[in-house]
Amino acid sequence: MDIIVLNQKATEKNINHILRKLESKGLKATISRGTEKTVIGVIGDTSRITEEEENAVRVMKGVEDVVRILKPYKLASRDFKAQNTIIKVKGKVIGGKKIPVIAGPCAVENRVIMMNIAEKVKAAGASFIRGGAYKPRTSPYSFQGLGEEGLKHLAEASRKTGLPVVTEIMDPRDMETILQYTDIIQIGARNMQNFRLLLEVGMCNKPVLLKRGLSATIKEWLMAAEYVMSKGNQEVILCERGIRTFETATRNTLDLSAVPVLKQKTHLPVVVDPSHGVGKWDLVAPMAKAAVAVGADGLLIEVHTNPENAMSDGEQSLKPDAFKKLMSELKLIAKAVGREI
Amino acid sequence: MDIIVLNQKATEKNINHILRKLESKGLKATISRGTEKTVIGVIGDTSRITEEEENAVRVMKGVEDVVRILKPYKLASRDFKAQNTIIKVKGKVIGGKKIPVIAGPCAVENRVIMMNIAEKVKAAGASFIRGGAYKPRTSPYSFQGLGEEGLKHLAEASRKTGLPVVTEIMDPRDMETILQYTDIIQIGARNMQNFRLLLEVGMCNKPVLLKRGLSATIKEWLMAAEYVMSKGNQEVILCERGIRTFETATRNTLDLSAVPVLKQKTHLPVVVDPSHGVGKWDLVAPMAKAAVAVGADGLLIEVHTNPENAMSDGEQSLKPDAFKKLMSELKLIAKAVGREI
Amino acid sequence: MDIIVLNQKATEKNINHILRKLESKGLKATISRGTEKTVIGVIGDTSRITEEEENAVRVMKGVEDVVRILKPYKLASRDFKAQNTIIKVKGKVIGGKKIPVIAGPCAVENRVIMMNIAEKVKAAGASFIRGGAYKPRTSPYSFQGLGEEGLKHLAEASRKTGLPVVTEIMDPRDMETILQYTDIIQIGARNMQNFRLLLEVGMCNKPVLLKRGLSATIKEWLMAAEYVMSKGNQEVILCERGIRTFETATRNTLDLSAVPVLKQKTHLPVVVDPSHGVGKWDLVAPMAKAAVAVGADGLLIEVHTNPENAMSDGEQSLKPDAFKKLMSELKLIAKAVGREI
Amino acid sequence: MDIIVLNQKATEKNINHILRKLESKGLKATISRGTEKTVIGVIGDTSRITEEEENAVRVMKGVEDVVRILKPYKLASRDFKAQNTIIKVKGKVIGGKKIPVIAGPCAVENRVIMMNIAEKVKAAGASFIRGGAYKPRTSPYSFQGLGEEGLKHLAEASRKTGLPVVTEIMDPRDMETILQYTDIIQIGARNMQNFRLLLEVGMCNKPVLLKRGLSATIKEWLMAAEYVMSKGNQEVILCERGIRTFETATRNTLDLSAVPVLKQKTHLPVVVDPSHGVGKWDLVAPMAKAAVAVGADGLLIEVHTNPENAMSDGEQSLKPDAFKKLMSELKLIAKAVGREI
Repeated sequence: MDIIVLNQKATEKNINHILRKLESKGLKATISRGTEKTVIGVIGDTSRITEEEENAVRVMKGVEDVVRILKPYKLASRDFKAQNTIIKVKGKVIGGKKIPVIAGPCAVENRVIMMNIAEKVKAAGASFIRGGAYKPRTSPYSFQGLGEEGLKHLAEASRKTGLPVVTEIMDPRDMETILQYTDIIQIGARNMQNFRLLLEVGMCNKPVLLKRGLSATIKEWLMAAEYVMSKGNQEVILCERGIRTFETATRNTLDLSAVPVLKQKTHLPVVVDPSHGVGKWDLVAPMAKAAVAVGADGLLIEVHTNPENAMSDGEQSLKPDAFKKLMSELKLIAKAVGREI
Repeated sequence: MDIIVLNQKATEKNINHILRKLESKGLKATISRGTEKTVIGVIGDTSRITEEEENAVRVMKGVEDVVRILKPYKLASRDFKAQNTIIKVKGKVIGGKKIPVIAGPCAVENRVIMMNIAEKVKAAGASFIRGGAYKPRTSPYSFQGLGEEGLKHLAEASRKTGLPVVTEIMDPRDMETILQYTDIIQIGARNMQNFRLLLEVGMCNKPVLLKRGLSATIKEWLMAAEYVMSKGNQEVILCERGIRTFETATRNTLDLSAVPVLKQKTHLPVVVDPSHGVGKWDLVAPMAKAAVAVGADGLLIEVHTNPENAMSDGEQSLKPDAFKKLMSELKLIAKAVGREI
Repeated sequence: MDIIVLNQKATEKNINHILRKLESKGLKATISRGTEKTVIGVIGDTSRITEEEENAVRVMKGVEDVVRILKPYKLASRDFKAQNTIIKVKGKVIGGKKIPVIAGPCAVENRVIMMNIAEKVKAAGASFIRGGAYKPRTSPYSFQGLGEEGLKHLAEASRKTGLPVVTEIMDPRDMETILQYTDIIQIGARNMQNFRLLLEVGMCNKPVLLKRGLSATIKEWLMAAEYVMSKGNQEVILCERGIRTFETATRNTLDLSAVPVLKQKTHLPVVVDPSHGVGKWDLVAPMAKAAVAVGADGLLIEVHTNPENAMSDGEQSLKPDAFKKLMSELKLIAKAVGREI
Repeated sequence: MDIIVLNQKATEKNINHILRKLESKGLKATISRGTEKTVIGVIGDTSRITEEEENAVRVMKGVEDVVRILKPYKLASRDFKAQNTIIKVKGKVIGGKKIPVIAGPCAVENRVIMMNIAEKVKAAGASFIRGGAYKPRTSPYSFQGLGEEGLKHLAEASRKTGLPVVTEIMDPRDMETILQYTDIIQIGARNMQNFRLLLEVGMCNKPVLLKRGLSATIKEWLMAAEYVMSKGNQEVILCERGIRTFETATRNTLDLSAVPVLKQKTHLPVVVDPSHGVGKWDLVAPMAKAAVAVGADGLLIEVHTNPENAMSDGEQSLKPDAFKKLMSELKLIAKAVGREI
């Protein structure tokens, strides 16, 4: 609530009322009276002013606007922690010089396909396997995932390949079950502001991959990370996966500028999911390359051995051969920006 | 999957492959060969084609686009049920000629304030009281609601005034508790695609007020209603509360055209929440009037006796006097469009 | 440039550099040093600070943000002129108690149709006729308008009915021609930031109807009005016609909240075009009613005697009978909000 | 108008009416009758069906939707011309293996600065110089450009460095003047649908750099290119410069996925302007790298020797040293994707 703008209608009584409020919070104020507007600058530790108190000032008589200078997130902020957060999972590192690739099908469909894909992506150089056992689908009549059976297939594929697992949680009631099988817990775009779920994963001891909401601002996304971190879990990985715009040629608009913006604002690692970002397999490779060039700390890429019969999002999945080719192309880009893959 | 568009690269083999697939599903096809594109029209009950099968066709060689003619929702569709759904709750009706107003504070703060507001809105002609006991807040450091204590205050206010209660659920684990106190369960905008929560409220026997997601299309919103209805609960009330756009002068952009669009597409009642839609109390009255004029079946309006000290969204709350004045103005608009308030 | 926020990296040298700059402009400054940020409040007539100078400060070392308190528009601002601007054209008034309706086809197609429509809308109570002689079309292969011939038909229809004419200009080179035939000059949405055209109409002595750009913020729209006014023409009518969002059920999303927002920010009259806003004739009537309820000073409605064969936008045109029915319904709404139609 | 979807209300009479219309245009039709919808497939050269005729069908009784299969643009389409368009200007090539960089200040401010910047960007490896002599500014009170004087400085800088010139046109009346000094004519984002200006540059014999509109879809952008090409000028360069979204951390959201999408849809070269796309100089370098990685055919980068005192957009300009560093980094990325810079 660092700056309070008053309009011409603000009386001395209004101004004094605000000043007393600030004093009662142990804050000092400077007043700048202009011809049209008066501005109150608030000095002191304004981070102690809650959203409720800010709001109370906002509706006071004569107040035109309140401009907060301090960011609403703390733990996630680079001001709070200057050094990059580096997350280590079973020998794999996210946030370091090497750029890990998380690959696998959108949904776990059955044991054979899962094992097959896991071996293929491992051979191509992926660092993690992914696959959904609980699937958020826009239609209640679509395949909703295999549930715990799917988690078991993931775990088996992990044992076989040595690749740690990333999988999504949709419901706090599944927490205990999922934690038995996964290495990183994913919060999907549609649950980015499912605050109860955020608090829940904030209390577990596994890293959280937090996807950006469909129309979330970067600030809201960092606030969602702050929810997780406020409960003690500091290992949050941010995942850009496209935002909703008016453009219909792509499923979403992948906002790659979010990567360098986040690198300035937060110490958390940032990964990019070009598969969901564009929604069409033949656009995935160029966007994956761009993501590495822009400075992403990791990639999340959908791979399926038989996209034609995939039960979810086959349209955006790469076949293993295309994935393998992409991995070798990405190595060149990574090198060009001083990193490895 | 009613129409399949093929490009010039599609071979006879590709076309035959698709035709055999369709036959295996008991569907017939007509082929229209143009100079640049070939179009396959699918005849029969294409609603049996799942999203997965559609997707499988979409990635086939030579396929450029798949156009589905049938809507993906059924139970929510006006094609399925032509007559308006009318929902009755303790003598109050939503979806009829009379336009009920749901009023109250954003959050339940304490017993005294809740009782006070409830009496004021009852006196002004409201039909339901509202108030959040579990609050979705963008910051983990903001007031998160009183929980069950808040529900108790709501229930007491309801007993005193005779007004049924509308309150929000955020977590399936709160279901049992909330059902003891509320008459209508609200799903907030941020949970519109919290599919597990939708299934949960779909299994209860109380009406569901389903807010539109921040960037949800009307189709996705109806699919969310379909989730609830697919579990048996047919009493869904749709609530327009503004969508996210680039405009910053208002908190959201209240999409009033959604009301007549929904009236064509669905039999479910549609209510409007101008308070969240605009986010500023002095814009609420004109937008409430517009909502009645456009054909809304109800209104949801935030009222607070002391917005300056409200713990949530005071900026957009009307004081009881302003609410009373608005109610009398709305009566005139309602009459002008052949309804009552 | 009223408030300058500095980050921790700002040195005393940086601060002094800024202070000297401000002094050289005859401005005073107050400095508030916080633990994390330092804030400079600028006192004096900051409206003299140009965008260029603001920009210069913005890129200075240590500067994190610059917050301008004064609005960038002056002549259009209600602070500058408190009373509503009322525009009179051949006995018709825009901005008064009576709400004029501007009606007619999207494009002038031929003399007979134009005369016919003009008589029908006059009989139904319209105050102005409209019709495009120069049409902005997304395709170069679509009908581009009749040009001066169309203007002649409009003028003849005007003489016959006594209704003044509203028509669009697309090119400054058509200015002289159009001025011979029209009473109000329209700037279309796609030309809202065609600054040369704005300056041109700013120099003529006829009112300007300025449509909101497809993705223009309210502030940018008012800046476009300021362009016109800066050249001397103070008679600008703002026309909300829908903004672009992700929703596809309607052609655009009609932002009715823009009306009360503008009523606070500017003295200029605000009219609403529900036809372009929704793009479907059967949604026009409810949105027109909502526009009157929300406080619009006028309506712009497309009417065509034979929408099936209209050369442009037939899909969103009302037939004369539907228009007549709507006009009588609008009278009731107008009365309910203390106005007339 | 290749596919016409009819609803249950469509009578045989309605259907026959449509069939006769199609026959009169020399087109054949196949009818697929479903339980809920009937679909008419149109066979023959449907590209001859105009937008007006499509519209006429759209409003016919019983018609629910019309789906056009053929793209509305022809000359710009890759179906029409499979090979990449390569544009040669004074020995420089756009659309080839080498990726040219267009660099310079936002606005031409004076002779000395322009000459200085031109020499610096030439030394760093730029292929073209840019600078605005006519500036589209949101405020009428901002610097509007030097006009012809600015063009003269550009021409002099071009003679000195040998770099061809790119500069913007805002008004068809400036055409003759600008053509004397520039090598490529730029159409700015705000004028992407200034159709008269598009027709004007379509009649000249210099290449046109066409920026994407602030909220233009890719289809509309290609239609704008089609406008230019329809007048004979086939040398259009598309320039992605960011679209408007709800995100406020960046000036616009640079849509890099537009590059591979365009590479599929059109033969025209595609360049990227990261400076306007992000609006902050420290985000330009990562986005420029991403643009090269994604497959851009060129870059447009703002460079200024003294951004602190730039008269326009200094905030997003690189200093010559930063530009030089970026150029050497881009070489590595270009090589990694099989190109040169």
